[in-house]
Parts: sequence; C-alpha cells; structure tokens
Amino acid sequence: MRYDRIIATNWKDNLRVVLVSTRNPLNIGASARAMANFGFARLRVVNPYDVAFREARSAVGAAPLLHAAEECASVAEAVGDCRLVIGATSVGHRWLEHPIRRLEYGARIVKRALAEAPVAILFGSEKFGLTNDELAHCHWLMRIPTVDADLSMNLGQAVALCLYELARDGKAAQASPDKRKPATAAEIEQITRMLLEALDRSGYINPLTGASTEEKAHRLVRRLGIVARDAPVLLGMLRQILWKLEK
Amino acid sequence: MRYDRIIATNWKDNLRVVLVSTRNPLNIGASARAMANFGFARLRVVNPYDVAFREARSAVGAAPLLHAAEECASVAEAVGDCRLVIGATSVGHRWLEHPIRRLEYGARIVKRALAEAPVAILFGSEKFGLTNDELAHCHWLMRIPTVDADLSMNLGQAVALCLYELARDGKAAQASPDKRKPATAAEIEQITRMLLEALDRSGYINPLTGASTEEKAHRLVRRLGIVARDAPVLLGMLRQILWKLEK
Repeated sequence: MRYDRIIATNWKDNLRVVLVSTRNPLNIGASARAMANFGFARLRVVNPYDVAFREARSAVGAAPLLHAAEECASVAEAVGDCRLVIGATSVGHRWLEHPIRRLEYGARIVKRALAEAPVAILFGSEKFGLTNDELAHCHWLMRIPTVDADLSMNLGQAVALCLYELARDGKAAQASPDKRKPATAAEIEQITRMLLEALDRSGYINPLTGASTEEKAHRLVRRLGIVARDAPVLLGMLRQILWKLEK
Repeated sequence: MRYDRIIATNWKDNLRVVLVSTRNPLNIGASARAMANFGFARLRVVNPYDVAFREARSAVGAAPLLHAAEECASVAEAVGDCRLVIGATSVGHRWLEHPIRRLEYGARIVKRALAEAPVAILFGSEKFGLTNDELAHCHWLMRIPTVDADLSMNLGQAVALCLYELARDGKAAQASPDKRKPATAAEIEQITRMLLEALDRSGYINPLTGASTEEKAHRLVRRLGIVARDAPVLLGMLRQILWKLEK
C-alpha cells in the first residue's frame, strides 16, 4: 500500500488547496472557511503577503484549519507531493499552452484522481491570477464558467465554487420531490364539510346555486394541498368559527 | 402574454436576488460581483445597513448592477412580483415549518420556475440569517450542503454557490475529454528516430542491448501523448542536439 493511501482516510484529505501570492487576509480567511464548510482540510499558502497571513490566522471561523495551514516558499514546494496539479481560472483561452476544462467536467477528473493520490488546485493572486511561472507547474486549467471572462472572480468565491463542485452530490439533484405527508382524504373531506357549514351559516351560499358552490369548494380545498400536520390546525380554526357563528 | 414574460428576455432576468439586512458592504459587493459573473442582474436589498449599501455602490466591479439595485422597505415589497420565494440557508433542520431542499435539487425547481415567472431567493443577514418573520414569506428553503451545519457560510460565497448551481451546465460535466489534437504517427516516428540517433551518438545505447533500447524508446515516446502543436518543437530541439553531437 502506498504511503499516500495510508494517510488519506478519505478522498477529501488528498486535496491541497494552494493559495499563491494572496494579498488580502479576508480572502485567505474566506477560503479556509469554504474548506471547512465542504470538509477539506489541507491549506497551503505560497508567498502570501505576510501581514495578510497573520491577520487571517487570527480571524474568526475555520481557526484550526488556518493554524494547520502550511506556508511554502515556492509553488514547486507546495505541489511536491501531488500527482496532479490544476490551476483554477475564470479567464477564457488566455494560455493556449494548457488544456482548459470547465469546472463541471474538470472537477470530475480531479475527484477521480483524489481517490488515488494527492492533487493540488492552485489559486493565483487577486490582482494577477496565476503567472506563467506558476502555470508551468499545472497539468491543466479548470475554468469557472462565468459569463464574462473579463470580469474577474472574487478569490474566496472561486475557492468555494471549486470545492462545492467537488463535494456536490449529483444524485441529490435527481432527488424525489416532497417528503411532505399529505392529509388523508377523510381529513380533507371533514375540512370541506366544516367550511361549507361555515359558509352556509354566514349566508355565503345562495340557495339557488348551492350545489355549484359546494362543488367548487370541494375542488378548491383539494387544490390547497393540505399536509397532514396542518389538517388538525385547520379543523380547529373552522370549529371555532362555527362555534362563534352558532351563537 | 403576461407582462413578466415580456420583460424577461431570458430566464436569468426573472431571478431577484434579495439581500435582507446585510451589514457588510463587502458582502453586498461580492454578491453583486457573483451575479455579474453568472449573468444575473436583478438585485434587491431590504433594510441594509445604510453605510454598507452606499459603500458597496462605490466599490469596484459590478458597478452598473449595484447602481440598478432596488432598495426595498420590507421583504414583502422585495418579493411582491414573485411567484416563488425561496430562502437560502446553510443550516439544517432548524425550521420544521418549511420544506428544506438541497441546493442541487432545489436549484432545478427554481430554474424551471424561472422559465415562467419571477422568483426571489432571500439571503439573510451575516449574523442571524433569515428571521422567522422573513422566513414566513418563503415557500421553502434551499440548503447549501455544507458538512457542518454549525459553521455558517460566508454570505458572498452563499450567493455565488446558489447562482453557480442555477447557471451550472450539467451536460458540461459529461463533456467528452480532450480536444487536444495528437501528433501524427509519422511525427511520432520521426521524433523516435531522432531521439534514438541522439542516444546512439551520445553513447547511451549499448551495442548488446540496442534492440531492446530501441523498442523501449518507441513505447516511451508513444506514452508521452505528444500533441500536434508540440511535435515541431520537439523535432527542432532534437535537430539542434543532433547537430551539436555531430560536431
């Protein structure tokens, strides 16, 4: 068994989120928080603006993760133990040297690779993205599918989107609808009866069109889609109204 | 034709992103930027911290969108023209009154609804999320599937994730791999020949095992997966090395 298989108790532990030359402590904090949100733990920072990293470490939320973050002197060091290195970008085909894959597809490949060995995803600086030197370490690029390639993406959001797509459960999208238990036909019928009684006592029902009104009320109550839990509440309301109307 | 069908030239225009009681201008700015990134335009803010809204408006990025943002006095006003109102949350089953759907599934329903009529997605304040009063306007809740319900999510990231899932292209995930054009067999063969020639001239090839080395080199070069574009570059490199070896 390979060493990296032993240390990775779950595929998420194989991911290294690598922030390169990050300038804003809020972005380091937001990235760490997104990692905690989606269950990833291995953060590496390369050449961060010093103050930014210190400030981020003292920020609220995701504190243990930030304290365990590794500071690396170079991208080469940060990706050294990885068998696949991906650069994240929201930009279009700026670098022809690299294949670019859309996040939806690229994440699938990354996820498959994570089951086997460590993988790094690199995020460049807020201002310049990944430089050519940094890109040289990447096997390919993963593009967040924004509508406008000229409008750059917030770094913390970019990290959150990549991790979400990795953690995303495709089967959940196919989930069966509503687990809400509908009221029984008997309850619906009782509600209809009581409503009609209340309408009758209120003088709402015209004797000439009573049958039609009754029919309409039946259909209306059924269209409401009353759930089991609400049936006794509605019956209680109607009971009270009927009691008052009787007086 | 209904009015809201006339104004919505595309389904994305039917979405209203509603930020309720947002305190931090950076979060309003980040939300607007995510909207611009994914092609959504209708932002409504309810009872924002005044300074926050003004500061956000002057922030860089997504400026036109922020200037067109509508300020509403109440949630009721902000969702008035919508036929479906969804509350976004990263919390678990705190509110039993509402059905909760995972983002992957909920977004599908929202997308279908957006094709027909305006839909609002509500995002609560950074500190308290959506209050019970605000939740009362929602048909159901959409949950961002974080691993730990106790660790709240960054507001700007939550907005980005919901919009990404709406804009996400499921078909892209099934995309066919690599559009990279491989080098021709003739180019690969030429590269192999030149490499062997260089190895021979360098004294790498042992006369006794030459046949085996040649075979290995053949397989190795083919495993490299050289693309069409790189073939002439490699040939140029080898040509230069051969020229130098000849001298």
